[in-house]
Amino acid sequence: MSDVKKVVLAYSGGLDTSVIVKWLKETYDCEVVTFTADLGQGEEVEPARAKAQALGVKEIYIEDLRETFVRDYVFPMFRANTIYEGEYLLGTSIARPLIARRLIEIANETGADAISHGATGKGNDQVRFELGAYALKPNVKVIAPWREWDLNSREKLMNYCEEHDIPVDFAKNKKKSPYSMDANLLHISYEGGVLEDPWTEAEEEMWRWSVSPEAAPDQATYIDLTFEHGDIVAIDGKATKPHDVLSYLNKVGGENGIGRLDIVENRYVGMKSRGCYETPGGTIMLRAHRAIESITLDRESAHLKDELMPKYAELIYNGYWWSPERKMLQAAIDQSQGSVNGVVRLKLYKGNVIVVGRESEDSLFDASIATFEDDAGAYDQKDAEGFIKLNALRLRIAAKKGRLDD
Amino acid sequence: MSDVKKVVLAYSGGLDTSVIVKWLKETYDCEVVTFTADLGQGEEVEPARAKAQALGVKEIYIEDLRETFVRDYVFPMFRANTIYEGEYLLGTSIARPLIARRLIEIANETGADAISHGATGKGNDQVRFELGAYALKPNVKVIAPWREWDLNSREKLMNYCEEHDIPVDFAKNKKKSPYSMDANLLHISYEGGVLEDPWTEAEEEMWRWSVSPEAAPDQATYIDLTFEHGDIVAIDGKATKPHDVLSYLNKVGGENGIGRLDIVENRYVGMKSRGCYETPGGTIMLRAHRAIESITLDRESAHLKDELMPKYAELIYNGYWWSPERKMLQAAIDQSQGSVNGVVRLKLYKGNVIVVGRESEDSLFDASIATFEDDAGAYDQKDAEGFIKLNALRLRIAAKKGRLDD
Amino acid sequence: MSDVKKVVLAYSGGLDTSVIVKWLKETYDCEVVTFTADLGQGEEVEPARAKAQALGVKEIYIEDLRETFVRDYVFPMFRANTIYEGEYLLGTSIARPLIARRLIEIANETGADAISHGATGKGNDQVRFELGAYALKPNVKVIAPWREWDLNSREKLMNYCEEHDIPVDFAKNKKKSPYSMDANLLHISYEGGVLEDPWTEAEEEMWRWSVSPEAAPDQATYIDLTFEHGDIVAIDGKATKPHDVLSYLNKVGGENGIGRLDIVENRYVGMKSRGCYETPGGTIMLRAHRAIESITLDRESAHLKDELMPKYAELIYNGYWWSPERKMLQAAIDQSQGSVNGVVRLKLYKGNVIVVGRESEDSLFDASIATFEDDAGAYDQKDAEGFIKLNALRLRIAAKKGRLDD
Amino acid sequence: MSDVKKVVLAYSGGLDTSVIVKWLKETYDCEVVTFTADLGQGEEVEPARAKAQALGVKEIYIEDLRETFVRDYVFPMFRANTIYEGEYLLGTSIARPLIARRLIEIANETGADAISHGATGKGNDQVRFELGAYALKPNVKVIAPWREWDLNSREKLMNYCEEHDIPVDFAKNKKKSPYSMDANLLHISYEGGVLEDPWTEAEEEMWRWSVSPEAAPDQATYIDLTFEHGDIVAIDGKATKPHDVLSYLNKVGGENGIGRLDIVENRYVGMKSRGCYETPGGTIMLRAHRAIESITLDRESAHLKDELMPKYAELIYNGYWWSPERKMLQAAIDQSQGSVNGVVRLKLYKGNVIVVGRESEDSLFDASIATFEDDAGAYDQKDAEGFIKLNALRLRIAAKKGRLDD
Repeated sequence: MSDVKKVVLAYSGGLDTSVIVKWLKETYDCEVVTFTADLGQGEEVEPARAKAQALGVKEIYIEDLRETFVRDYVFPMFRANTIYEGEYLLGTSIARPLIARRLIEIANETGADAISHGATGKGNDQVRFELGAYALKPNVKVIAPWREWDLNSREKLMNYCEEHDIPVDFAKNKKKSPYSMDANLLHISYEGGVLEDPWTEAEEEMWRWSVSPEAAPDQATYIDLTFEHGDIVAIDGKATKPHDVLSYLNKVGGENGIGRLDIVENRYVGMKSRGCYETPGGTIMLRAHRAIESITLDRESAHLKDELMPKYAELIYNGYWWSPERKMLQAAIDQSQGSVNGVVRLKLYKGNVIVVGRESEDSLFDASIATFEDDAGAYDQKDAEGFIKLNALRLRIAAKKGRLDD
Repeated sequence: MSDVKKVVLAYSGGLDTSVIVKWLKETYDCEVVTFTADLGQGEEVEPARAKAQALGVKEIYIEDLRETFVRDYVFPMFRANTIYEGEYLLGTSIARPLIARRLIEIANETGADAISHGATGKGNDQVRFELGAYALKPNVKVIAPWREWDLNSREKLMNYCEEHDIPVDFAKNKKKSPYSMDANLLHISYEGGVLEDPWTEAEEEMWRWSVSPEAAPDQATYIDLTFEHGDIVAIDGKATKPHDVLSYLNKVGGENGIGRLDIVENRYVGMKSRGCYETPGGTIMLRAHRAIESITLDRESAHLKDELMPKYAELIYNGYWWSPERKMLQAAIDQSQGSVNGVVRLKLYKGNVIVVGRESEDSLFDASIATFEDDAGAYDQKDAEGFIKLNALRLRIAAKKGRLDD
Repeated sequence: MSDVKKVVLAYSGGLDTSVIVKWLKETYDCEVVTFTADLGQGEEVEPARAKAQALGVKEIYIEDLRETFVRDYVFPMFRANTIYEGEYLLGTSIARPLIARRLIEIANETGADAISHGATGKGNDQVRFELGAYALKPNVKVIAPWREWDLNSREKLMNYCEEHDIPVDFAKNKKKSPYSMDANLLHISYEGGVLEDPWTEAEEEMWRWSVSPEAAPDQATYIDLTFEHGDIVAIDGKATKPHDVLSYLNKVGGENGIGRLDIVENRYVGMKSRGCYETPGGTIMLRAHRAIESITLDRESAHLKDELMPKYAELIYNGYWWSPERKMLQAAIDQSQGSVNGVVRLKLYKGNVIVVGRESEDSLFDASIATFEDDAGAYDQKDAEGFIKLNALRLRIAAKKGRLDD
Repeated sequence: MSDVKKVVLAYSGGLDTSVIVKWLKETYDCEVVTFTADLGQGEEVEPARAKAQALGVKEIYIEDLRETFVRDYVFPMFRANTIYEGEYLLGTSIARPLIARRLIEIANETGADAISHGATGKGNDQVRFELGAYALKPNVKVIAPWREWDLNSREKLMNYCEEHDIPVDFAKNKKKSPYSMDANLLHISYEGGVLEDPWTEAEEEMWRWSVSPEAAPDQATYIDLTFEHGDIVAIDGKATKPHDVLSYLNKVGGENGIGRLDIVENRYVGMKSRGCYETPGGTIMLRAHRAIESITLDRESAHLKDELMPKYAELIYNGYWWSPERKMLQAAIDQSQGSVNGVVRLKLYKGNVIVVGRESEDSLFDASIATFEDDAGAYDQKDAEGFIKLNALRLRIAAKKGRLDD
């Protein structure tokens, strides 16, 4: 228990991670470095400084990571049209590798030999943090207090606070919620509470980032998104930075009741869990990206991407962002995006994201071939006969053997 | 050109296939058998009898195939959560193998040596009809008039009608449309006309099966769907036949503005084309099926299905329903559906299909394990450490070699 | 430690598992049931009875499982042409699920609440035993002594024997080997010792089941294998039971220097390890199965099988035989084997398995089509133009946009 | 027929392509440019010049492409451990895209508007040539005489020669063979003749590049191959150019009876065909590449490569080298090869390629972890329990529902 000298903690400024600061010092007799990141979760991060200082922390890192988060993690993931289990846009999953990287970089800068986090032993986040940490610093010591301590009830935590003079007003800054939540620029998530019964509908007051479709405006909003190499670079014709793209789409999406999701998902640790998510901007981006690909991407490239996507999504969900296999898939995906350029026009209306137009100088849609009108010889319909005949040949040979008639 | 004695034609009763009847007789000096099927396209099929008789056809087949269509084609496809290119629910594709099968069965019954259809040489349907036909009767002769004749404009067709006494009122029964359309119980599709420019939004008056989200009721509709072995067997607790399921869901979905789709897709013959689709019932079924699977299907089964799905969808889109490889995938998919039983509650509102509850006696969701509360030892959080450590081992060994830091 | 009442142990009769009998009784104060199986490892299993009795065991199971092993595990696996990491034929992996099943069935028969095995904490076998056990009896208690005790050196084990009156002659029956070995009808494996350096060539005296290619006869052996539904049912025209097939092929293969393999493989627990294997019969079966498939299996079925195989192999290697996803893949594979019937002629010579002939009433090889001579119209070469033109269409459209020239 | 002005012909100097020169001029009234490449087929290419001149050709291209062939086509393909249908090393397939590229480049240089080749309408090569040509020059005209003319017997060809003063000694330079053959540095292939019966063993005199295993030396040959980034760069420690690597391995492999293959394969045009191949160097390279990967490549990267390989092989076999989807897969494969460095020692003996050692500074084999001896804490066996428990969790939950017991 005592060979840890200094530990870098992913510190939110909330009650739980404040308890962890104390507990680490007490349990490991070690120095604690706190790291607090602005990933667009919608809360100020600067107040974490005073809180950490009050807990006796001397090395305090507070950083705005929104730009790198969207540019280097969210955007590459969206190039793959990534969805986990047909529904989930991986809002929590994609933030973890960046946090893991900064924890390790700070450990290297400060000479720390360990990292710590506030994720429980039942969830995916512990895996994502720790796989990232081990991949980037193989000999790092990882401390996961929730797997070690016995403070496994709210009551015990409160007693610990009292005994250790941790100001409980820490908790009051955050509106008390019956849900376990996580937020960043890509989404906000809700778990626990009444959601633990999959038959129970989520309460309207749970949702924080979007209005309900019912409450959304009766007038649709139209928006043009410009892509370069598969990433959004402009909104309504105006060049926009990656994190500003996502902020803006969250805003306009949330206003139009877009991006709510209520699912039961399969965790990497082997259980099913109910989760609710709001991903307004991501929901818009996914639809738009598929639309721009629909006119600019080769058919077989698109189909190959679709076949690779479930595995790519699983890797990110399970915490393997830093793995060599994720990098292999990324290389294939990125290779396909060079011509994914152009503009998509969307109509946003009461929960719906409707594609109404797409155009591109790199379009492979050739109206002169596809037309129902006279195509002036661009396509010779007689070619189809040979195409079908040879594609059918193996089936015909098999059929002659009486094979295919069951 | 002259070795055909009798040909079975997929006959809609419309102008084009009526011209084909005449053209086949004239060109091949052969008998023509017509086959007209009710697949739920929403038009009477019985009038095709008089039209065929007027054209001199003696063997006329008119059949209601709605039940087998949904039970034996649509439902098996939906077990796989099948989507082509991330969007398209394959409404046209899935009807073709059934039509091909009946054409061949009728050919066998009537002693015909050829089949014919009215699909063009640019599209997917010719491929689907013909691959099916060859797979089921390898030596059948296939006649595809659109690839052979020179009646490649409306004017030439009309002249042909006049010259051959084909009553052009045939065409008047059908509301004249600028779009090429196809319909069956699963969907109605639109191509051509202004849709040939992917930047142009579809006109509101084009859509026939659904109201717009704007025009849908302000009150949501709740619906309970009961699944057995992956198929819907009851609606709101009442046992319902497959095709009645789809009819009802089309109705309630269309009323709530659900199921419109506007995409550019990649045809098997090598071109991109714009298509608009209304699939109200199918859109609801897909969402509901994923929801019931989310609590009843094993994680790795679900992920394997997701990995296999794009290929399965491609096979159906390309016309390989009767192929041995489609049957292999179907065997795998069906193997997974034994416990996909239970009820899904949906909220339908202005284009949105929202899952609000799912329950099943076969549920693998175990609240006693997933809970954020005390789980009474159902899950030992300490197991997670070993799980992570061994999953990380290969990454750590590589990291020690300086591998993963780029 | 003390809530175990009765444990079923996979008992080889060797020193290690004899120590485990004593250690289980002493540590858990429980009854021990021993289970010893003949899987064709080439050693008598009956002597295990006296040894178990001498250790005070009252319930002793000794069984000949060779037939079920080959028919229900080895043969289904070979239908998939299964190879792990391009080389390994999974000889050890495929025996574990059967042992796990019998352990659990015996536990159910004898009212035991736990099972135990002698596999170490570093290997794959612990995983295979335990995943199987948990899948078949989810609440079973698993005891893995090598992960628990401190007898982690030969010396400590010997001391334990002395202290507990375990007759060490137990060990003498087995020729002392520097290698860790495992054998069953499919293979014999070697690990450890000098093999721990991947640059060191295995010594000739290590190999037990095969002569070296150098020492094999100078005359080739020809053999005919008859397949039904993908399984071998006759040798040289004589009907043969599954395990007799494998016994015979091991003999003739070993005599001809066939089936030696020396690889570094990736274990599921995260490390690489060196292993040497002799799989004479399996090496022959794999080659023959591919040969019979080459004339009887549809192209796309074959390609789909090749795409699914690596995952199927991984599942078996990792211990997921009893998982739903393995059963899904098996359903797909078995679906493909109905017409995999016929005869393959092989030439065996000094390590080589050479296919020299294949024939089948279900052959899809059609000489009248494939011939370089006049095919009398069986194939119309002009069809190829349309086939190529439409397959090229997407490439041409992309090329016109300057896409493919890098 | 007459809109072709100048055509570039893939010209071997043999009788068939000499006839094509004349036939093109006569049929299309066009200029012919000949292109003859040395790909290591083992015949002089320079004599083609005089022959072409004798046929009146004015623009004659004769090129040594051996280096680019191996470096830019063969080596990238071997990085993927590419095998078609479990057996075939794609020796013919991989040469076609290079020839297609040079045909198109020469067409661009000479102002030609068409290309031509001597491949038949039944085979894969026409597809490979033409897909390549269309991908690189979308509006090129392709002339495939074998699909157009009626010279479909040897007799008609000879008559044509006589009528057109084509010196038939052209044919005599080549030893008359009953087989259709193709050769380049990677392999030589045989089709037709007695091989059209898959039950007939190939005659010993057919094989040209290798001795039989029986005739190979009684002494084994040892060889060390050094890899950098997945490619062989040195033999027995001596730096060697790509095409010299393959030349040398062909020589030493052929001498040791290595690389003969006799298979029935599935052509892209829909038929099965029998082919025999000699690929001595390629057989050695494949084995060696897997061996160096076995110690240097991450497990999941290796498994992902194995899953992608069948599709990659199919793309090359079918002629899609220049397609965007092949480039996507190549990007993934190449991404994995950075650390595939080191030395493999092989023993070559009478048809066997036996790996006897592998070593690398980038080795991920860690004896200190894998050892059966005391590992000094490098691996904590207790971690395995948690690893297994969580991997088993989903199976246990399913088993409690009675799922997995069938």
